[in-house]
Amino acid sequence: MSTDYYKESLELHKKLRGKLSIAAKAPIRNTDDLSMLYTPGVAEPCRQIAKNKELAYDLTIKHNTVAIVTDGTRVLGLGDIGPEAALPVMEGKALIMQQFAGIDAFPICLDTKDKDEIVRAVKAISPVFGAINLEDIETPKVFEIEKRLTDELAIPVFHDDQHGTAVVVLAGLTNAMKITKKTKDAKIGIVGAGGAGYGIAKLLHAAGYTNLIVFDSKGAIHKNRNDLNEHKKNIAGITNRNGFAGSIAEFSGADIIVAASAPGSLPHETIRRMKKPNIVFALANPVPEVSLEESRSLGIDIFGTGRSDYPNQINNSLCFPGFLRALLDLRVRKITEGMKIAAAEGIAAAVGETELKQGKIVPDAFNKKVPANIREAVRKATASD
Amino acid sequence: MSTDYYKESLELHKKLRGKLSIAAKAPIRNTDDLSMLYTPGVAEPCRQIAKNKELAYDLTIKHNTVAIVTDGTRVLGLGDIGPEAALPVMEGKALIMQQFAGIDAFPICLDTKDKDEIVRAVKAISPVFGAINLEDIETPKVFEIEKRLTDELAIPVFHDDQHGTAVVVLAGLTNAMKITKKTKDAKIGIVGAGGAGYGIAKLLHAAGYTNLIVFDSKGAIHKNRNDLNEHKKNIAGITNRNGFAGSIAEFSGADIIVAASAPGSLPHETIRRMKKPNIVFALANPVPEVSLEESRSLGIDIFGTGRSDYPNQINNSLCFPGFLRALLDLRVRKITEGMKIAAAEGIAAAVGETELKQGKIVPDAFNKKVPANIREAVRKATASD
Repeated sequence: MSTDYYKESLELHKKLRGKLSIAAKAPIRNTDDLSMLYTPGVAEPCRQIAKNKELAYDLTIKHNTVAIVTDGTRVLGLGDIGPEAALPVMEGKALIMQQFAGIDAFPICLDTKDKDEIVRAVKAISPVFGAINLEDIETPKVFEIEKRLTDELAIPVFHDDQHGTAVVVLAGLTNAMKITKKTKDAKIGIVGAGGAGYGIAKLLHAAGYTNLIVFDSKGAIHKNRNDLNEHKKNIAGITNRNGFAGSIAEFSGADIIVAASAPGSLPHETIRRMKKPNIVFALANPVPEVSLEESRSLGIDIFGTGRSDYPNQINNSLCFPGFLRALLDLRVRKITEGMKIAAAEGIAAAVGETELKQGKIVPDAFNKKVPANIREAVRKATASD
Repeated sequence: MSTDYYKESLELHKKLRGKLSIAAKAPIRNTDDLSMLYTPGVAEPCRQIAKNKELAYDLTIKHNTVAIVTDGTRVLGLGDIGPEAALPVMEGKALIMQQFAGIDAFPICLDTKDKDEIVRAVKAISPVFGAINLEDIETPKVFEIEKRLTDELAIPVFHDDQHGTAVVVLAGLTNAMKITKKTKDAKIGIVGAGGAGYGIAKLLHAAGYTNLIVFDSKGAIHKNRNDLNEHKKNIAGITNRNGFAGSIAEFSGADIIVAASAPGSLPHETIRRMKKPNIVFALANPVPEVSLEESRSLGIDIFGTGRSDYPNQINNSLCFPGFLRALLDLRVRKITEGMKIAAAEGIAAAVGETELKQGKIVPDAFNKKVPANIREAVRKATASD
């Protein structure tokens, strides 16, 4: 990405001074309007909701409103830049939800990094919202925050870095498997055990993939390592059935590698030792673990990244607008693996059979079928739950 | 207010399902837009703000965004109805700010009544906002919340029930004094020592009124009472210089009475014993302490209420849109009594000298001069601070 490009974005942000505004759904033209939309008339919807809280969904913004919550500790590739500096990203996210799925999302950038404080703050503000989207909060803290909020709130908690990326990886993989005719016992390496890596491992396991190995910076994660935190212990419990204990450089014979780590973390030698035809997703953003040029010289058969200027953009923005739309419309209380698998199928199905090819395993970011497909697939999954 | 009227408002709320929406200030039409408004371009404004937090005012929604914060404990005349049931009022408030002053306000209805939790939650969410508006939180708790937030936050904290009502009372009184030719040593009774009564007493004192007596349900507040909480002790310190210890029924010879209490709290006998010409503001809403008919039979010379269907509507909605506009535009850190006095002068001046009469002491709610007048008056006051 050129420096000019960043300059242009900065100029645009200076000009806009905020990418969102609050719009009135009804104008206040006169005293009558004021008395109906505000006091004294407003007392009646208040009284109704006081009798039955659920009516907030019918009489207020709650049914269509999402909180995009961050503490600014893990923003893009920029790291811990704080809540104010995270705001342009959260506004961008809200903008995407508005434009792609008609959702009213509001950024909540928290001035605390303490997990108990974050849980308390999100619970405190929850009455106004129909769903919570956790965003760019550092791991492993975010896993506990997600779990506690999911247990304690009556609205769904979506963790985009974990759930969203995993759904799009599963969607891409579903289509890539069709082309390469691989089956669910294909040997899959996942490089990186942060939010994305963890989410991907859990979702592929839930979707029936049986031969997964996850690598962190110390090598393959297996049950006998004594340096594993809670979520890595979970990973060890559902992956690496043969107890492989080597490093990523020693890993060979993989059908599929999904990297959600950083440039330099996936050795070219490991790619050369994969079983052909091979599938590699290199998801670090904006600089992927493997460049498009490298993917060609390495002869990777199906290659995906997070970038919009490469083919096969495996990006969470394919998932979150439609998935949150589904959560709101279906009044989902808790997100299940079944809903995520369904969403992945909805995304995969948006690539028509005739379009499907090595360079087209996921739909375009602007494919209007995607949110509707996700919503319909999640509806079916919840109906059968 | 008729039952039909409440029904109509309920129907309108059902139809709208929320009075606010989030609007995009820039559309996402293609990949280029996405890359400028979101990743990767957005990294640059993030980096700039990470270096200098103040730039959030230039590059994000912060400069124009207000949090309307409540815990739902004292909503309208409905009492403690909870955060969900408070939401229609907070949305209405945000709607007024949008329509009257172009402010982007978002409702924050907190699922906690604990004052420490409220302070913590508001501090946690503060990075996104340019100002905090506290609303419909029960007294005396709200006074401590306001004080702590004012001390601890870098953005202004406006408590509408206290500051807003007081500003409009002072504005109305300023014009009423011109008509009746009374001076600042006029004898003034304030009935009610909640948020509004406290705010009125403090602001009239700061504006130079010297002869104030505040009544709570036990009678006049004076230094020798041993049942006073913190804020009532503050009241005792600045009012009732002669130590009057009687009840409101025993109060006589007042030039002015301002009631911010409930129907039944202001005896007609007390009004009959006022010094003529007399001024009475009866601010309980929607049913004032004195009805328009009663005011006529009692021969009150200048009468004001909070109702839009009576003359002289002494309502905080005259103040808060313009005052918050001023706080945001002038990047005020802490609200001073000087700013509030200035705002009252700005409101009072919006009634032209030729219009001014007993039935027209405050401008109409839709008078477009008001927000601009307040903003200009507050600007002058901050410039001279």
